[in-house]
Amino acid sequence: MTTKRVLILGAGFGGAFVARDLARLRRPDVEIEIVDQDNHFVFQPLLPEVAGGSVNAADAVTPLRLLLPGAMTSQGVVAGIDFARREVEIVQGARGERLRRARWDHLVLALGLETDLSRFPGLAGHAMTMRDLSDAFRLRNHVIFCLEQAEVAETMEERRRLLTFVIVGAGLSGIETAGEVAGMIGRGLRFYPRLRRDEPRIVVVEHLPRILPELTPRLADYAARNLQRRGVELVTGVGIRSAAAGSVELADGRVIQAQTVVATIGAAPSGLLNGLDLEKRKGRIVTDRFLAVPGHPGVWALGDAAAVPLDDGGIAPPTAQAAVRQARVLARNLVAALDGAAPVPIAFQSKGQLASLGARRGVASLFGHEFAGLFAWIMWRSFYLGMVPGWTTKVRVAVDWTMDALFPRNIVQIPQTTRRAVRRRRFRRGDLVFGRGEVTGPCYIVIDGRFERDDGRAITILEAGDLFGDGVLEGERLRRSTVRALDDSECLAIDPQDIAELAPVASTAALTRRNSGRRRSR
Amino acid sequence: MTTKRVLILGAGFGGAFVARDLARLRRPDVEIEIVDQDNHFVFQPLLPEVAGGSVNAADAVTPLRLLLPGAMTSQGVVAGIDFARREVEIVQGARGERLRRARWDHLVLALGLETDLSRFPGLAGHAMTMRDLSDAFRLRNHVIFCLEQAEVAETMEERRRLLTFVIVGAGLSGIETAGEVAGMIGRGLRFYPRLRRDEPRIVVVEHLPRILPELTPRLADYAARNLQRRGVELVTGVGIRSAAAGSVELADGRVIQAQTVVATIGAAPSGLLNGLDLEKRKGRIVTDRFLAVPGHPGVWALGDAAAVPLDDGGIAPPTAQAAVRQARVLARNLVAALDGAAPVPIAFQSKGQLASLGARRGVASLFGHEFAGLFAWIMWRSFYLGMVPGWTTKVRVAVDWTMDALFPRNIVQIPQTTRRAVRRRRFRRGDLVFGRGEVTGPCYIVIDGRFERDDGRAITILEAGDLFGDGVLEGERLRRSTVRALDDSECLAIDPQDIAELAPVASTAALTRRNSGRRRSR
Repeated sequence: MTTKRVLILGAGFGGAFVARDLARLRRPDVEIEIVDQDNHFVFQPLLPEVAGGSVNAADAVTPLRLLLPGAMTSQGVVAGIDFARREVEIVQGARGERLRRARWDHLVLALGLETDLSRFPGLAGHAMTMRDLSDAFRLRNHVIFCLEQAEVAETMEERRRLLTFVIVGAGLSGIETAGEVAGMIGRGLRFYPRLRRDEPRIVVVEHLPRILPELTPRLADYAARNLQRRGVELVTGVGIRSAAAGSVELADGRVIQAQTVVATIGAAPSGLLNGLDLEKRKGRIVTDRFLAVPGHPGVWALGDAAAVPLDDGGIAPPTAQAAVRQARVLARNLVAALDGAAPVPIAFQSKGQLASLGARRGVASLFGHEFAGLFAWIMWRSFYLGMVPGWTTKVRVAVDWTMDALFPRNIVQIPQTTRRAVRRRRFRRGDLVFGRGEVTGPCYIVIDGRFERDDGRAITILEAGDLFGDGVLEGERLRRSTVRALDDSECLAIDPQDIAELAPVASTAALTRRNSGRRRSR
Repeated sequence: MTTKRVLILGAGFGGAFVARDLARLRRPDVEIEIVDQDNHFVFQPLLPEVAGGSVNAADAVTPLRLLLPGAMTSQGVVAGIDFARREVEIVQGARGERLRRARWDHLVLALGLETDLSRFPGLAGHAMTMRDLSDAFRLRNHVIFCLEQAEVAETMEERRRLLTFVIVGAGLSGIETAGEVAGMIGRGLRFYPRLRRDEPRIVVVEHLPRILPELTPRLADYAARNLQRRGVELVTGVGIRSAAAGSVELADGRVIQAQTVVATIGAAPSGLLNGLDLEKRKGRIVTDRFLAVPGHPGVWALGDAAAVPLDDGGIAPPTAQAAVRQARVLARNLVAALDGAAPVPIAFQSKGQLASLGARRGVASLFGHEFAGLFAWIMWRSFYLGMVPGWTTKVRVAVDWTMDALFPRNIVQIPQTTRRAVRRRRFRRGDLVFGRGEVTGPCYIVIDGRFERDDGRAITILEAGDLFGDGVLEGERLRRSTVRALDDSECLAIDPQDIAELAPVASTAALTRRNSGRRRSR
């Protein structure tokens, strides 16, 4: 019996559910590996609740290993796909230094979407995003931080800026985030005696003429009225132009002073797909009705990253619902392909859409019926609680919801652990700093001691002040040399992105004048 | 009626409990302000449980605002104390840019301890610590990350290093951390099919001849046997010499290859006390038996930062128990001072000590009796659950413990949100970058556009490539100039610690050669 390897890239609704459906068959002739940079399946509809603090971050998601006991779970970053050799490059290791090549017989592309904010000057540098668990967790802690600092602010200007939260985009993610942040602030405010109830401003900016394009105008109207009654401002028909430190500029020239900008726009396919020879539609990988990628036998795609054809000539919407349905069909078709059986085509009919507005209100359209208010919110919670994979996670979420209903909203701020970009690293004599062929990481400046660099042709000795490991600036993906400490030595390690940003602008007029001054004073 | 201001620095057991005892009196003539860099009271005995994952980070601590509804809670960093003017300088604001001066009639120094690892080369750069909530939360996520990467490691060497966890120090904090990390690994391992049960190594290194000096030798023996049976290695009588990337060297020359080093040693008084004219004993502030600081009327100290005299001529131990007892007496004496009544002296008698070993075992000596095993562990949990302030937090902790008993250990890794040290910042025309008198923050290099610097004497125009705001390198605490954007402009912002570390070593031979090369290629 030959074992076939099914390699799944991405553990969102598409990837995780294909893996689960396949793993449940327990076929000894199928080896499943799923690769994701997180060790959990992210249940995106719950991220706004994490941001609002009604669900604990670690409870809102399901560990992949709990969900997929029959699959090999591989935490790492996909760096490249080689269709000719049927191999994927995965960056792994404690320092992200190792490039592993994973072979496939069947490859499932379930890479989802990323965020690209580059169209709006300053937005990438100043906005928070809401794509993964860290984002939601960071936003929760940041909102509490803003309340804390507003409480002790000394000018009205500072206070107003700290209490203004701009959410860019009024789709499902933007509206749910606005609703949950409003809920957090509304319930947290009782702990901040100096802040008046009418002071915090939550502004949702949407370039389309209305909010929630995913839902009918009637439901969107209800949602708009509900949010507005709770103090959320909705600015529709105007996109944003740019963001800056402490402010956002709208396309019509209005400037909103805000400490916090959350961008829920800019969904873009994974940058990994750019260089690949794949047919695309709106940036998404074109598949046939069996979810196979034409021209690439054994390659499949689904979910937000895939353009799956619908009966009407359109493509499937980038929703969890569509991805789950596709996963079911794809798991069947993978088995069919392994057994030499005929695949089944996908037929997708949206069952409807739900949105939670926070504060026990929601909107839903299901099977052609529309619901708004408390009942729709209960449906939302029941539906998603049913959909969260894994019993443990269901119970954890339900317990968190219960606790949040019984007690005041938890306003514990967990400070963001900031890793310094310039770090002091010590190496013992003989220690490997990095080896040839490893994935390029930080570059180093020697503080003290000596290092030996061996690039296969020559050996260089590096001493105090010398820079090494800087090949990343020339676009080096893998280390071309091996560096070891010759003595007990110390270095500064600088992340490649940091040095890359610094290098072009840090001219003699800037860093060097400074350096020489400092050197003399040592 | 004149209002008296009681200003409390630090919200550990000492500070938070003084504030609570005072606030409960609801005296209209007393205004209480408590300052801490976190917005919560940290219940340190629970930190190892956060690190081990049996309690959610946000549940293990009590928000100060929930605990102290009658006090003003001020999140900020204490930067200086001016005894002559009876003022404390507090750094606040969204960017940590504002220096607030808070006045006091009575000042309570409850600053606790910090960690100073500078005695051991490389330790500060390579070890994690266990002092606050972020530390515990970071360790939890890091342990899971190591298991994930060990599962996909390609060499035995890499795998062994990822699975070796060295804990430096075998006091209460070190032993409890070792026990909880062992518990997390023991219970998490079932999800990692490639890792054998005997592979993970947890090594506790202690320079004293035995572990748990806080407890009797008999209880320490029990704890040692229990931990050893669970696979924890105890290396006593040998301190560490240094740490390096991926290894720790012991004083006897042994080198342990380990990805993870946790330092629970190096407790040191707050650096803030260094410059102050205060009598100290072992670095702690000397008080009289009424907890007043001699020579400074209206200044009081308690907790780990204070050297409070005992009957036997010694000083009170740095324990939660002693701090809580001191807080009660200090609250009474503050009231007595306000009312012109006589203060009461402190009498402290330790009731005993408890330690949890994880995995449902503990040791305890209480009122002269000794307990070890399950019963001592239950006592530990009951005692600390009783001691956690705030009903909400008690219930949250109890629910977490129940969930952890019923379900598998939660192995969701929440990736650490890393803030880039070099960040792109955009400023709109007219925007203030920083103002004169603000606390010094990042320095900036202009990428694009123009800025105007006004230092009160002259106005300078800054253009692409220019560095500004770098006064921190000359030790400038407050900005000496105001900088505004003249156009819509962009900068790189670099954190002061980063540029300060970079500057002395980044010579022409390093960054500049690089720079000029890059500049030409633009």
